[in-house]
Amino acid sequence: MEDLKGRTGLSRRSFIGTATVASVGAVAMAASARAAEPAAGQPAAASAPPAPTAAAKAGATGAKKLEEVLKVAREKLYPRCRVCPECDGQACAGEVPGLGGIGSGMSFKNNVTALQKVRLNMRTLHDCARPEVSTTLFGQKLELPVLCASLGGTTYNMGGKMSEEDFIEASLGGAQLAGTKGLVADGTQDPLETYKLRLEAIRRHRGIGVIKPRSQQEILERMRLVEDAGACAVMVDIDSAGRSARAAKLGQVIEPKTPRHLRELVRATKLPFLAKGVMTLDEAKVALDAGCAGVVVSNHGGRCLDHTPGVIEVLPEIASYAARSAVILADGGIRYGHDALKFLAMGAQAVLVGRPIVRGAHGGGPEGVALILGKLKAELIESMTLTGVASVRSVSRSIVTV
Amino acid sequence: MEDLKGRTGLSRRSFIGTATVASVGAVAMAASARAAEPAAGQPAAASAPPAPTAAAKAGATGAKKLEEVLKVAREKLYPRCRVCPECDGQACAGEVPGLGGIGSGMSFKNNVTALQKVRLNMRTLHDCARPEVSTTLFGQKLELPVLCASLGGTTYNMGGKMSEEDFIEASLGGAQLAGTKGLVADGTQDPLETYKLRLEAIRRHRGIGVIKPRSQQEILERMRLVEDAGACAVMVDIDSAGRSARAAKLGQVIEPKTPRHLRELVRATKLPFLAKGVMTLDEAKVALDAGCAGVVVSNHGGRCLDHTPGVIEVLPEIASYAARSAVILADGGIRYGHDALKFLAMGAQAVLVGRPIVRGAHGGGPEGVALILGKLKAELIESMTLTGVASVRSVSRSIVTV
Amino acid sequence: MEDLKGRTGLSRRSFIGTATVASVGAVAMAASARAAEPAAGQPAAASAPPAPTAAAKAGATGAKKLEEVLKVAREKLYPRCRVCPECDGQACAGEVPGLGGIGSGMSFKNNVTALQKVRLNMRTLHDCARPEVSTTLFGQKLELPVLCASLGGTTYNMGGKMSEEDFIEASLGGAQLAGTKGLVADGTQDPLETYKLRLEAIRRHRGIGVIKPRSQQEILERMRLVEDAGACAVMVDIDSAGRSARAAKLGQVIEPKTPRHLRELVRATKLPFLAKGVMTLDEAKVALDAGCAGVVVSNHGGRCLDHTPGVIEVLPEIASYAARSAVILADGGIRYGHDALKFLAMGAQAVLVGRPIVRGAHGGGPEGVALILGKLKAELIESMTLTGVASVRSVSRSIVTV
Amino acid sequence: MEDLKGRTGLSRRSFIGTATVASVGAVAMAASARAAEPAAGQPAAASAPPAPTAAAKAGATGAKKLEEVLKVAREKLYPRCRVCPECDGQACAGEVPGLGGIGSGMSFKNNVTALQKVRLNMRTLHDCARPEVSTTLFGQKLELPVLCASLGGTTYNMGGKMSEEDFIEASLGGAQLAGTKGLVADGTQDPLETYKLRLEAIRRHRGIGVIKPRSQQEILERMRLVEDAGACAVMVDIDSAGRSARAAKLGQVIEPKTPRHLRELVRATKLPFLAKGVMTLDEAKVALDAGCAGVVVSNHGGRCLDHTPGVIEVLPEIASYAARSAVILADGGIRYGHDALKFLAMGAQAVLVGRPIVRGAHGGGPEGVALILGKLKAELIESMTLTGVASVRSVSRSIVTV
Repeated sequence: MEDLKGRTGLSRRSFIGTATVASVGAVAMAASARAAEPAAGQPAAASAPPAPTAAAKAGATGAKKLEEVLKVAREKLYPRCRVCPECDGQACAGEVPGLGGIGSGMSFKNNVTALQKVRLNMRTLHDCARPEVSTTLFGQKLELPVLCASLGGTTYNMGGKMSEEDFIEASLGGAQLAGTKGLVADGTQDPLETYKLRLEAIRRHRGIGVIKPRSQQEILERMRLVEDAGACAVMVDIDSAGRSARAAKLGQVIEPKTPRHLRELVRATKLPFLAKGVMTLDEAKVALDAGCAGVVVSNHGGRCLDHTPGVIEVLPEIASYAARSAVILADGGIRYGHDALKFLAMGAQAVLVGRPIVRGAHGGGPEGVALILGKLKAELIESMTLTGVASVRSVSRSIVTV
Repeated sequence: MEDLKGRTGLSRRSFIGTATVASVGAVAMAASARAAEPAAGQPAAASAPPAPTAAAKAGATGAKKLEEVLKVAREKLYPRCRVCPECDGQACAGEVPGLGGIGSGMSFKNNVTALQKVRLNMRTLHDCARPEVSTTLFGQKLELPVLCASLGGTTYNMGGKMSEEDFIEASLGGAQLAGTKGLVADGTQDPLETYKLRLEAIRRHRGIGVIKPRSQQEILERMRLVEDAGACAVMVDIDSAGRSARAAKLGQVIEPKTPRHLRELVRATKLPFLAKGVMTLDEAKVALDAGCAGVVVSNHGGRCLDHTPGVIEVLPEIASYAARSAVILADGGIRYGHDALKFLAMGAQAVLVGRPIVRGAHGGGPEGVALILGKLKAELIESMTLTGVASVRSVSRSIVTV
Repeated sequence: MEDLKGRTGLSRRSFIGTATVASVGAVAMAASARAAEPAAGQPAAASAPPAPTAAAKAGATGAKKLEEVLKVAREKLYPRCRVCPECDGQACAGEVPGLGGIGSGMSFKNNVTALQKVRLNMRTLHDCARPEVSTTLFGQKLELPVLCASLGGTTYNMGGKMSEEDFIEASLGGAQLAGTKGLVADGTQDPLETYKLRLEAIRRHRGIGVIKPRSQQEILERMRLVEDAGACAVMVDIDSAGRSARAAKLGQVIEPKTPRHLRELVRATKLPFLAKGVMTLDEAKVALDAGCAGVVVSNHGGRCLDHTPGVIEVLPEIASYAARSAVILADGGIRYGHDALKFLAMGAQAVLVGRPIVRGAHGGGPEGVALILGKLKAELIESMTLTGVASVRSVSRSIVTV
Repeated sequence: MEDLKGRTGLSRRSFIGTATVASVGAVAMAASARAAEPAAGQPAAASAPPAPTAAAKAGATGAKKLEEVLKVAREKLYPRCRVCPECDGQACAGEVPGLGGIGSGMSFKNNVTALQKVRLNMRTLHDCARPEVSTTLFGQKLELPVLCASLGGTTYNMGGKMSEEDFIEASLGGAQLAGTKGLVADGTQDPLETYKLRLEAIRRHRGIGVIKPRSQQEILERMRLVEDAGACAVMVDIDSAGRSARAAKLGQVIEPKTPRHLRELVRATKLPFLAKGVMTLDEAKVALDAGCAGVVVSNHGGRCLDHTPGVIEVLPEIASYAARSAVILADGGIRYGHDALKFLAMGAQAVLVGRPIVRGAHGGGPEGVALILGKLKAELIESMTLTGVASVRSVSRSIVTV
């Protein structure tokens, strides 16, 4: 025991961490081989664009490339992220900074376990042999209803192997390769200069600008920058309000927003304005009453408040109230294409993915992100085929049982 | 510990994998000793055939032989299958190719956990001292209501230590030794020649031909081959439709079937035609309305779509609608004779077992498969004795509590 | 990995096994220190007999002795039993022969987890400062409502470090030291001589004779022996009927009993006759209608049929039907005095404990068994004080919440 | 591995124990870095006192100091407490003496898992940017609604690295630094002199005196000492009644209290008198009918009776009956500020924390305790901001979903 104790030790966490790094060969190979394969055959099965898209190209030598991306990601992200076989919030519980859920990590874990409780009803006697996965959002054609979430803090949270600038280029650039868009994060601790650098990615690839719930003046100032960069929408991630203490230490203001505040912001821009981080029906109503174009149902990946419900548990109530008149986006624990399909069945019009994008960006830059998105798209198509869904624009609740 | 960390590492998966290989001595010995013992005494307790059947003979030196079969299977199948003490989908989650469940592996795991929630009501004050386990299916007498599932991809999924031809001979030949039948698989990636070779086993042992949901023309062509081989029934495993992308890459067509397609196929053969892979009542109705002789309630061992319900959860609704007029078969997580008994209580007329057959075939060819089936039969008889079931042809729902 | 794999390996089971043996020092010491302590102070708190009972004496130097008993038991029983800190059926799942649950081990595990779901309502504002734990059963005064279960197969199941004769003396002798009684088992594989030797213990300490569900003739013959030995009751463990195949191999008959069979047996003896192994209300009714003096609600420690409910789940229905007019005993997962209290609250008049007795007998003979029983008694008193129960003869259902 | 097996072994418990000690560097650093950070910025976000409080000062160099406190605590408390990353009762199950839950440890574990099932509804569209966390209890202003629980047995339970006197000074002194109060324990095994020494801490810092359910005479005697020391309230921890056997061995009386007993005690003091250890509505009624100023809903950290419900499960019923007219305090599994918030939402007016205080005291004396309380306060403020709670004096049930 002396040796064990004195030299290395094994906690449940370090055990998993070590394991995932060491077992790259076996596990990742098997996982990625399966995962990437359908991506390769994607063009034939999907909505048959005249020429292979960039994403499909990126996926052309599929399995091999994705395997390499995950291997590199694991090396660059460890120990901030172990790139576990299943990204479920167990190994990284409490690691904020880092990529884990806050506190006991239950909010992150709840996102994943809530998704497990939503079962898919398999059906294969139908005529949906060529599911349509493209959609339109904020006037943009998306090749898949999946956006890259707003992620920041490459040093604070991800270990510092990528600059903020390179990361946002990987995210939005990868999204563009895959035919979709990404969100640009606003970091509490970042100088305004960093935010401006990030917005350059919107200039190149379009996308959505996200602003922390700062003072009204500061938000208005940043909204102008977002507009100037040519964003297709703007969001305030209101669930960052818990960072007020941390912000104050840095001489900044982060605060909850009143309905009046929100209305003022909505009126100050021509862009579609969304409140990001809504977890109750009453706050969704407040946001829409204030004029928001929609809401993002999200618990910030479980990183704001411990012990919230899983996102997909609260989504249906909000969506059934608002989905006809407003844009309902959502995120929380989406790792596979069929996870995205469940969110669509529960009322979201498109979803955001976060942690998989961190893997893709660190493992392969824009191409790595495109590979991840290509895998999600292939899985989405496969699960639509197996549940009888013709188009992501209209997914029946009957494909799931809760 | 230095070595452990530096050189190899332990993931949850490799940990279990290593463990099961290393602990053959202790665990497997205990398990198989118990398992095989009743098999040896089988003839006396069962429906007393005039002479010991081949299966009984194969089980005569029971425990020892089964132990050896599992040991060999473990060596041949590792790392594609660890031959875990409980085959529950934990260690192999996501390993497709391989023998695991697809994606997060939840569909495979759901099959097993759903079975755990069906409890058996033990009863021993009755006159069912000699339970009858034989039944009739497609005009064939079966010594037990258990069929060998359609399994293929010995190289793609099982590691390549057996040829497709040897495997199918082990499966159907073992079934014949045990007095039952097996299904013949159709592999997406296999040339037609391979399928023909497999059908040779039907010629020798009879059995059931399964065809992938290919183009109508291809299915019709293969149905002719199945008929010619003397099969007692034919099935299309419609739940393979999710493989369309993979098939396209190989220049083939795999697709969901419309009701019209199905009707066309049913009419084109005199054999009983079943749709395999039905998981909802509405699709069971579609299949029967199209003229199918029955359905196989199955999620393909959890290998098509992630996050489906466990099979035994959806079986009762389908069976209570259709069991009087149609053949209802089912599979999903059956490892013991009492698992089979639960499926019968929930409405199936016979069941399919898959992964245990892979063990038997790799560990001992036809005799290995017969040993596995003999163990299942002995356990089935024992559990019927302990629940008061006189015959597998009529199993009361009252023996289970859900 | 080579080293790990080649030399030792770690399965989930061997891991636990090794651990519990190796960690005797730390874990067992802490556990037994706590456990035995109240036993020492027992006489003062209990129903104040004029002089310390033998059990109390045995517990006089409590913690130290119990610690030693567990240490010796662990050495003698390993690997058939690891004497785990919590005896919950995890480590030994499937080990029959051995001390585990049959098959997947779920029936054993269900006994334990079902008990966990029965919560105790703590109450300390009352006048039950001196709970009465003695009761009367079959005309015998018992110092605690806990009997030693019928256990056999010291070689077949327990590893062969004790003879059947020594074991039964430890069990019934220890029971007598603690002021209670034990049951005498009947082993399928044992010659009649062994059974007779066991009955000698009844001659010395009284107790209850149990007979396997053999042919009527054989049962009648053994009932005579039981009567002659001076037993206070006789039982047939009808749930052993599943062993018919094994018995047949040994040239014996083990079989389910019909109501007519049962009535014949009841009429053939003046002793109270109980059916042991009842798990449904309808079979309890059958037994009582046949004239049985009572039933033992039991799933045979999870060793007959896999996947039964936990015993405490089915007890209340049976007890509420029969407890006024019949003797209701029960067992299943009882490890602590408060487990026994729950069974009393759910309707049992007394309980049987099995595996803890195996530990006591192997670790310290009759004194070891008495120590175990003394610990259970002390815990029972403590939990009665903390739930406001004055006497074990009348335990209100209101002390538990399910 | 040879060494590992031969010399030491790994139980689930020692594994975790070793791991947490060995992994101080990684895990604790990450955890404490996050935890302490908000504490540093606390003053700005909180109710803005004119000058930084002592607690805030103690937290000024936050993360670093807390990290050091946990490190020292782990060294001093091991193996009695492993200072696990999540203090959930798993590693220490059954360790009484020690810091674990009694028996199987389920009561401790139930406290934690019951808290996990109470979900927080995140809301950030409101005007609660500066939550008020101060409150008043027994005429005392508290800077946070969190009291240090009554803890004793530094040698018996905590390993003997601190004297009772130093420990109580750390607890009450740390509470004072943080602007709150602590409870003074009464140990069964301690001589009266020890109790008097503990009461000195009340003389210095005020606080609440707790007395074991001894004979009426002894309680009255100790109540006088508590009054003389200037306590603001007095409690009897009635749930200690289970220790009667142990007390008897030491020549003392510990017993359940009748309503008449309780009334006599209430009348004998001018101090607010509370019954500590109430777990049912009917006993809360008994206590209040006897004139108690309130009750502490508690299962004594799971250390009295195994298998009780989790405290937060029984709190709402009691609070909804009594909260308007009586003081309702509670404890059980509180590790984070948001745990405290849940208890307030479920009806408690303030909460007690125990095990975290043991860590703080052993790791850093009064300053260590103040750091722990500062962390809880910062987390409480953060979670109030994220659920829209303006003041701890009125927390709506609508912030939680059970």
